[in-house]
Amino acid sequence: MPSDHEESRNGLSGEERLIERYFKPLATDPNAFGLGDDAAALTPPAGCDLVLTTDGVIAGVHFLPADPPHAIARKALRMNLSDLAAKGAKPAGFLLSIALPINTPESWIASFAEGLGQDISHYGCPLFGGDTDHTPGPLSISITAFGTVPHGAMVRRATAKPGDIIAVTGTIGDAALGVLLNRDGDLAKGWRLSSAAADYLRQRYLLPQPRNALAEALRAHASAAMDVSDGLAGDLAKLCRASGLAAQVDVDAVPLSDAARAALSADAKLIERILTGGDDYEIVLTLPAAKFGLLGAAAQNAGVPLARIGQVISGEGVGFLREGKALSFTQPSYSHF
Amino acid sequence: MPSDHEESRNGLSGEERLIERYFKPLATDPNAFGLGDDAAALTPPAGCDLVLTTDGVIAGVHFLPADPPHAIARKALRMNLSDLAAKGAKPAGFLLSIALPINTPESWIASFAEGLGQDISHYGCPLFGGDTDHTPGPLSISITAFGTVPHGAMVRRATAKPGDIIAVTGTIGDAALGVLLNRDGDLAKGWRLSSAAADYLRQRYLLPQPRNALAEALRAHASAAMDVSDGLAGDLAKLCRASGLAAQVDVDAVPLSDAARAALSADAKLIERILTGGDDYEIVLTLPAAKFGLLGAAAQNAGVPLARIGQVISGEGVGFLREGKALSFTQPSYSHF
Repeated sequence: MPSDHEESRNGLSGEERLIERYFKPLATDPNAFGLGDDAAALTPPAGCDLVLTTDGVIAGVHFLPADPPHAIARKALRMNLSDLAAKGAKPAGFLLSIALPINTPESWIASFAEGLGQDISHYGCPLFGGDTDHTPGPLSISITAFGTVPHGAMVRRATAKPGDIIAVTGTIGDAALGVLLNRDGDLAKGWRLSSAAADYLRQRYLLPQPRNALAEALRAHASAAMDVSDGLAGDLAKLCRASGLAAQVDVDAVPLSDAARAALSADAKLIERILTGGDDYEIVLTLPAAKFGLLGAAAQNAGVPLARIGQVISGEGVGFLREGKALSFTQPSYSHF
Repeated sequence: MPSDHEESRNGLSGEERLIERYFKPLATDPNAFGLGDDAAALTPPAGCDLVLTTDGVIAGVHFLPADPPHAIARKALRMNLSDLAAKGAKPAGFLLSIALPINTPESWIASFAEGLGQDISHYGCPLFGGDTDHTPGPLSISITAFGTVPHGAMVRRATAKPGDIIAVTGTIGDAALGVLLNRDGDLAKGWRLSSAAADYLRQRYLLPQPRNALAEALRAHASAAMDVSDGLAGDLAKLCRASGLAAQVDVDAVPLSDAARAALSADAKLIERILTGGDDYEIVLTLPAAKFGLLGAAAQNAGVPLARIGQVISGEGVGFLREGKALSFTQPSYSHF
């Protein structure tokens, strides 16, 4: 990596050379001006609102420094895509800020850019621009993503209604168990997991699967939604607080992967970790019971698993009921903060 | 500051409590949903493009860890406002990502939010949302700012024309000298500066004065523009490269503050630092000579000093001429990278 003030023979600084080589090829959208300007210029589609979200990752906090750079890039982008999905928005593009430790090898950046390029294509979410810096601290990435919805149609948190049912996409708790396995590999034995099952859980932490395929159906049918990033219990509590309502969840209806179910059968206490651990990047949503069939059909078409887990009620707080008894959690919500 | 997993009696996590207390009062724009959702929703004005820019600061790299938090907040926002100004855009709002070291005192956050609030009001640039995290590294702030321009009217870097004159706003080199004074207080004596002059240069580094008042006139008259953040020499070289042209600058015409002029008369070698040092947050722009009178009048109305410093010519490279002789720089452009 170049040092401060380095200027190569073609008149480009070290930063410009890296941008030219690794990021400019990703910025093919005309809005990005080939990364050759101070800013991007986005022409919003007529009649649409722009949905704006920002989320970041820091080495050692949100990912392991030894994680593959291409996966780190994709995770950082997908965390933001997951917010767009939960809001019913179609991805429009993103800005990338990256702070690199001084001795980051160029091969790291090459792999990072390769992963980013894959997801840019896969999700149709072009790179509009960004900012690169060196840092004396851990590698940090901050992404701001833009999506579009018809005017006024962003799916909100605050608009759940009493009597609505509650549903979630995918499976819950996999990534939270994957983090535990990363910290202590012996746990896999204690949980009597096959190595495939342990790998599955670790992979769910490494690379989220945002539910952008469901965005349009959410706009059509959901009364409220948010992405599950800080744990189902805490995030559903946020949605209920924003809506001025309460919720009851049937713990046995919360969808679990085979791997999570295996771990849970070996250690029943893991239910708390599963429901509060975070990094799911699934969507929790509410909707009138009469619409569940329609949303379920749309989810099936989109290849997104969807499970009904509970109901919105009047009052305050979220109750997680197992065989009629309320679970209580020592740590109701995960916070990286 | 709260620890991970802390949940206070009202059901809010430590992160939520801080956001509620210090940032929610700043997010009064309806687009922000009181920071109570996953995302903001911006309805772009009809017929307008959105100008998107992102810029960040890291403690020890872009500011001194002991700088007043209110000034750090304002600098981070103003760096982005300066990009919007140079592109001819009217500020629309911004997203804030902040990574705080674990033991950041709450008083730091209170002061940071207060400074941010002042500039939000002053520049009419509301807070739309953001992301907070704890970091094991230095305090880092990344801002993404949005501006509006009539469709297709963003002022570009790549559109200078041969024969255009080159102008800059304000004065050049103050902040770069301020950084040197911060590093070595004895320099003020060597440069025979009054303490007021030394304070002035330090203040220019601490708190940029973005030229948003000139944005509309730039759209009307400039052929190309960019903000001067990495030094006049390097940034003008970028503008010329983007436009496929060269430039000649009359060093004696580059506007200097009284304080910078005093330092330069004590140490003639400082001219390189002044022209290449960065952190100016002024605007360098090009325009047909026939339009300089109009832009000058608009600048005067806006209270923005404007000086003609050179000319765009065919070819490659930027020549800085003093008494007809070209200066050469050992470090043509400052890079934080």
